[in-house]
Amino acid sequence: MSHINSVQKWLADNNYDVAYISDFMNIQYFTGFSSDPIERILALFIFPDKDPFIFAPALEVEAVKETGWKYPVFGYLDHQDPFALIHDHITDLAGTPKNWAIEKNNLTVEKYAAIKAQFADSEFTGNLTPFIEQLKLFKTPEEIKELEIAGKWADRAFEIGFNALAQGKTEQDIVAEIEYQLKREGIMHMSFDTLIQSGANAAEAHGAPRKVELFPNELCLFDLGVVYNGYISDATRTVAFGGVNEHAKEVYDVCLDAQLTAQAAAKPGITAAELDKIARDIISKAGYGEYFNHRLGHGIGQSEHEFPSIMEGNDLVLQPGMCFSIEPGIYIPGDVGVRIEDCVHITENGAEPFTHTTKQLQTFPL
Amino acid sequence: MSHINSVQKWLADNNYDVAYISDFMNIQYFTGFSSDPIERILALFIFPDKDPFIFAPALEVEAVKETGWKYPVFGYLDHQDPFALIHDHITDLAGTPKNWAIEKNNLTVEKYAAIKAQFADSEFTGNLTPFIEQLKLFKTPEEIKELEIAGKWADRAFEIGFNALAQGKTEQDIVAEIEYQLKREGIMHMSFDTLIQSGANAAEAHGAPRKVELFPNELCLFDLGVVYNGYISDATRTVAFGGVNEHAKEVYDVCLDAQLTAQAAAKPGITAAELDKIARDIISKAGYGEYFNHRLGHGIGQSEHEFPSIMEGNDLVLQPGMCFSIEPGIYIPGDVGVRIEDCVHITENGAEPFTHTTKQLQTFPL
Repeated sequence: MSHINSVQKWLADNNYDVAYISDFMNIQYFTGFSSDPIERILALFIFPDKDPFIFAPALEVEAVKETGWKYPVFGYLDHQDPFALIHDHITDLAGTPKNWAIEKNNLTVEKYAAIKAQFADSEFTGNLTPFIEQLKLFKTPEEIKELEIAGKWADRAFEIGFNALAQGKTEQDIVAEIEYQLKREGIMHMSFDTLIQSGANAAEAHGAPRKVELFPNELCLFDLGVVYNGYISDATRTVAFGGVNEHAKEVYDVCLDAQLTAQAAAKPGITAAELDKIARDIISKAGYGEYFNHRLGHGIGQSEHEFPSIMEGNDLVLQPGMCFSIEPGIYIPGDVGVRIEDCVHITENGAEPFTHTTKQLQTFPL
Repeated sequence: MSHINSVQKWLADNNYDVAYISDFMNIQYFTGFSSDPIERILALFIFPDKDPFIFAPALEVEAVKETGWKYPVFGYLDHQDPFALIHDHITDLAGTPKNWAIEKNNLTVEKYAAIKAQFADSEFTGNLTPFIEQLKLFKTPEEIKELEIAGKWADRAFEIGFNALAQGKTEQDIVAEIEYQLKREGIMHMSFDTLIQSGANAAEAHGAPRKVELFPNELCLFDLGVVYNGYISDATRTVAFGGVNEHAKEVYDVCLDAQLTAQAAAKPGITAAELDKIARDIISKAGYGEYFNHRLGHGIGQSEHEFPSIMEGNDLVLQPGMCFSIEPGIYIPGDVGVRIEDCVHITENGAEPFTHTTKQLQTFPL
């Protein structure tokens, strides 16, 4: 069943007459059309038993059609009242919907007032937000294929970054070289700001790459990902730049043990909280518990802000199709920082990672 | 008067007891603290006659303090109810506000319901959106200084890009080289996707850089900008890569005449619509009117989505402190595309550009 069909079924099951989808990321999810309209209006309307339609700024109409969208798309010009036009298109196609479902965590007070003014006798009680979050929790085989390709590009990014390591270069230089080479190879967008942190910088959770030279004989953390066809990758490796001391190696080994053990334990039936605890217990038992100060992982798909959240208190049972990060970290302020991360998808028997760069400690010569 | 003082005065003048600012871009504008909280809650509360406060995820509290914010900042943990905490902080500091002003074009239906539930007997009629838009319309001397530095970096980006022009390179290669060098020099973010378009590609309004080689003896369009200290630049130059034919030169000269004439006419007293018409008339008179299919310019500041909009129908009178782009374009499908753009700020006597790269047609050898 397509994602739109799922919404149609949900509308019918809950006696809603129309779904108003306003979040442009969700419009991309349902239609494949990707555009942030900023102050303009972009909307997707889905009905239980009629064709959906997209409403968009006039200058985006052609771009919608080019995505292969086979249902109607209606445009509006800047001087037109978009909500009056939406009213007319909806009533033409579907009469006057009585019960509306909206995205309550996305629709603004202003737009809500505007659509309500057009349908004064309707109810707007339905909330699409939890339903769409639930729908996005399970990736289709097609989506997993995109995530796999995005993952391969993250592996390529590591390769570029590791090869770029050299004395005299700064953290920002390494970011620049990774993104330069990826752009030349056709990847135009990273999924978030590429993070390169050398030595004790890696222990700063709120850090950013600096214009300071890489520290020799220290660990160096790479956290990065790309956008591929609307889907993203996100992975972290920590490597040795020159020889590192025994303490750094020990911290690395503890973090690696936590990551590998949790990844091996990820399978249908275990809960998110249990998975978090497996990694956390290993780090705590080694004496570093206080330095692992974030959840084990987050969901991944079109962004890194999806479900499931792999954390204490989340009793969600993992099931096939769920995609998330497994990223334990140990951050000892002023000393050393290690994080190791793969994103995975749950299969019938376990979890398959999207990235394959080795997690054994790699050492690169000065 | 600081921006926060302006809000305090507006609240007092309009008998509102509190302003709830939810747009993270506006929180940055008022406080200097820049963070996109995604699904978490970040809020700024301003009172007519009491100190404001920031409410933020706990892990952001230190970062707020580091910006030099001298008023209270309160954090919350993921398992806490943020709106219950907001209720307590507000009542502690200011009793129970009766009349609220909110950002109706930003606050979501969900957050609105959550804050209303905490203050059930209050009114939420005030709309901060138009007031803040009006406030942001006038840049302070300090803001103009930031915009000038951002502009200098755009000039540097052109220099890098023009030097990179070479046969065999693709549009994407040029993007990669500009961003690579800027990152190495310390500029980590572009203000939007850098646009390089060669030959007829430049006639595609919805184009993006391609992995195709630069066309020799054709015009090449560069549209780019950086983020500097929260303020952005945005500028366009079209240059010749090799010798271009007389037709391309003629189109260039018409566009340049429109740009220079409009920029010379920009001064206090003229309206946005009149300025648009000055450029449009020149292009129309030369027979290319149908190929200039967008407004003359947009406002600029912390983003390129600010006011004033320089377009037909906007009778706003330009005044000192307003900042916007002047960017006529001529796009002849399948043939040639030219756009020339400076962003300027209105002074007592005219308009000063933020970018200084020559607008005379530059030719770079193959």
